[in-house]
Amino acid sequence: MEIADLPTRTLRPVPGMRAIEIIDQTALPHACRTLRLTCLDEAAHAIRTMQVRGAPLIGVTAAYGLALGLSCRADDATLTAAVDCLAATRPTAVNLGWALDRMIRHLHALPPDQRAEAAWTEASRIAEADIESCRKIGDNGLSLLRPMVQPGRPLQLMTHCNAGWLATIDHGTALAPIYAAFDAGLDVHVWVSETRPRNQGLLTAWELTRRGVPHTVIADNAAGFLMAEGQVNAVIVGADRIAANGDTANKVGTCLKALAAQSAGVPFYVAAPCSTLDFDCPDGHHIPIEARDGDELRLVTGLDDAGAPACVRQIPASTAVSNPAFDVTPAALIGAIITECGNYPASLEALRPLSAKSARD
Amino acid sequence: MEIADLPTRTLRPVPGMRAIEIIDQTALPHACRTLRLTCLDEAAHAIRTMQVRGAPLIGVTAAYGLALGLSCRADDATLTAAVDCLAATRPTAVNLGWALDRMIRHLHALPPDQRAEAAWTEASRIAEADIESCRKIGDNGLSLLRPMVQPGRPLQLMTHCNAGWLATIDHGTALAPIYAAFDAGLDVHVWVSETRPRNQGLLTAWELTRRGVPHTVIADNAAGFLMAEGQVNAVIVGADRIAANGDTANKVGTCLKALAAQSAGVPFYVAAPCSTLDFDCPDGHHIPIEARDGDELRLVTGLDDAGAPACVRQIPASTAVSNPAFDVTPAALIGAIITECGNYPASLEALRPLSAKSARD
Repeated sequence: MEIADLPTRTLRPVPGMRAIEIIDQTALPHACRTLRLTCLDEAAHAIRTMQVRGAPLIGVTAAYGLALGLSCRADDATLTAAVDCLAATRPTAVNLGWALDRMIRHLHALPPDQRAEAAWTEASRIAEADIESCRKIGDNGLSLLRPMVQPGRPLQLMTHCNAGWLATIDHGTALAPIYAAFDAGLDVHVWVSETRPRNQGLLTAWELTRRGVPHTVIADNAAGFLMAEGQVNAVIVGADRIAANGDTANKVGTCLKALAAQSAGVPFYVAAPCSTLDFDCPDGHHIPIEARDGDELRLVTGLDDAGAPACVRQIPASTAVSNPAFDVTPAALIGAIITECGNYPASLEALRPLSAKSARD
Repeated sequence: MEIADLPTRTLRPVPGMRAIEIIDQTALPHACRTLRLTCLDEAAHAIRTMQVRGAPLIGVTAAYGLALGLSCRADDATLTAAVDCLAATRPTAVNLGWALDRMIRHLHALPPDQRAEAAWTEASRIAEADIESCRKIGDNGLSLLRPMVQPGRPLQLMTHCNAGWLATIDHGTALAPIYAAFDAGLDVHVWVSETRPRNQGLLTAWELTRRGVPHTVIADNAAGFLMAEGQVNAVIVGADRIAANGDTANKVGTCLKALAAQSAGVPFYVAAPCSTLDFDCPDGHHIPIEARDGDELRLVTGLDDAGAPACVRQIPASTAVSNPAFDVTPAALIGAIITECGNYPASLEALRPLSAKSARD
């Protein structure tokens, strides 16, 4: 696929069809290919296997997946079964449940014969709202970054995992302020953490390369060293679920960066749409943490000498591995939560006003 | 190579020859092969390319490397040139300089025609002393672990990188107390951190498998999650250089584990022989940190489908990477330094008595 042909959004409805097209993120960054999803099961599979990933994109894909699941029949039983199927795909990202709740509220009020069309329309509204939220997150995050700029020195930002446009529909969450800063002419450089075991940092590097944003990839282990050396001005990460008190679940390894940031006096920010806030979850202890297949750790994909996709086994199948996909960063380590509604301290009092906003959407 | 044929020490003199045999650790854990080193340049190459690695083993290899370098000529100029060649191989592990200093002190007092034989003897004394130090580190560390045992529950220990017998001549440093505990019949389980980018955690898993010690491999990113979940009773790591005040340089990523341990109230121990203490270095800011080739991050080795060693490129050559090999854990995060002379708080006052011991050896 030539650069000019590359999609600029992670998901789009296929014109004239009840289908969506996604970028298969399991093939990135080594190959960029799109997949067409035409039914509920394909959408659920795409979420489960991380063909789509990133909390906001999981939410939008689930909304479209539900619409696909109602194409033929849209009675209550079908609706419930489709929601259950999608809700079971991944446990940690609350945007999944949020999007499904919004779809159910909208659809339950309608007679079954209107639901298929309405589901499609509502899913596209969620997608458009996500794009607008991410754009605003970029603007709001930029307001935090601007005061950090020092003349003649690049602004050194660090991120973890991929919370760029690939994790949303467009713009991204953690990367939205970085793109906004770059577009505003600020001299930025991004430390990109590899993010083992799935190496989503390489998706971030792929995104940043396409946009021309200067960046350097590091091993996850190097984050503490760079912060202690004064080479990082701020850390910005995304979120999979933010509890009512501000405790934040994000890709495993995030809390290590937050601890290193606190130790080095580096501001640590979480960027996420309000749909990532879970006011039913009092604190981080109540966030379910997904345990994923150990082969994610045992097998490593890349390109062989001839440039073809290849895979090597670096850990024997007989070796026990543990692969938690997320960890929880305590609110006390978070300098601000950057949302489409503004920037908030990570505390129950500060976040409570967003409760109404989150429920209304 | 059959298990029965596997070497049980990382380095041994070849009987009847001026040569040593090492395990080529760049091939582990996927293949176990030995290499014969017969000259100074081969010894320097082995250290530089990490065919041998681990601070204590680097020191012993340098001592033998110097002996090899004096086989034909042993005048002052040859001695100085050989020392300079070996000292330049790797900057962070102080055991390298310590072993060379000890060799120089010993050899300078002798006439050149006695130096070749004396160097060989002194190198073997350093090797034997290392074995004995590591054995004592095991006993001393065990005294810290015993009180942590809870009836009916395995003692959950975490380590980083490889500080096992592969990093020394035998026993190991961080793994010595774990082996001692296992041999004493304690129910232990080890969380083994992958240790990107060189994956030395897989060497640790290989060692533990050979000895039958239960263990589980995790991504480096998972360490904070496991500690926060209460699944770790203690962390034990090795060291490449310990400053006079107790600040400790060890494999990059160590300081992130120390921060997570502090946050979770988990004891964090450093295990190292006194030769790793550098009383000329006042604190961690003065420890030189090695920057290694970015291809260590870009390329990943393992086995292909047929079980043959293979390599994949996971990051394009055009992507900038940064690869610091070590970081510094502040003394305040270290619960104790486990040495062959006993267990010491990580502070200038506590460590000072070891200064005389370190200089005497």
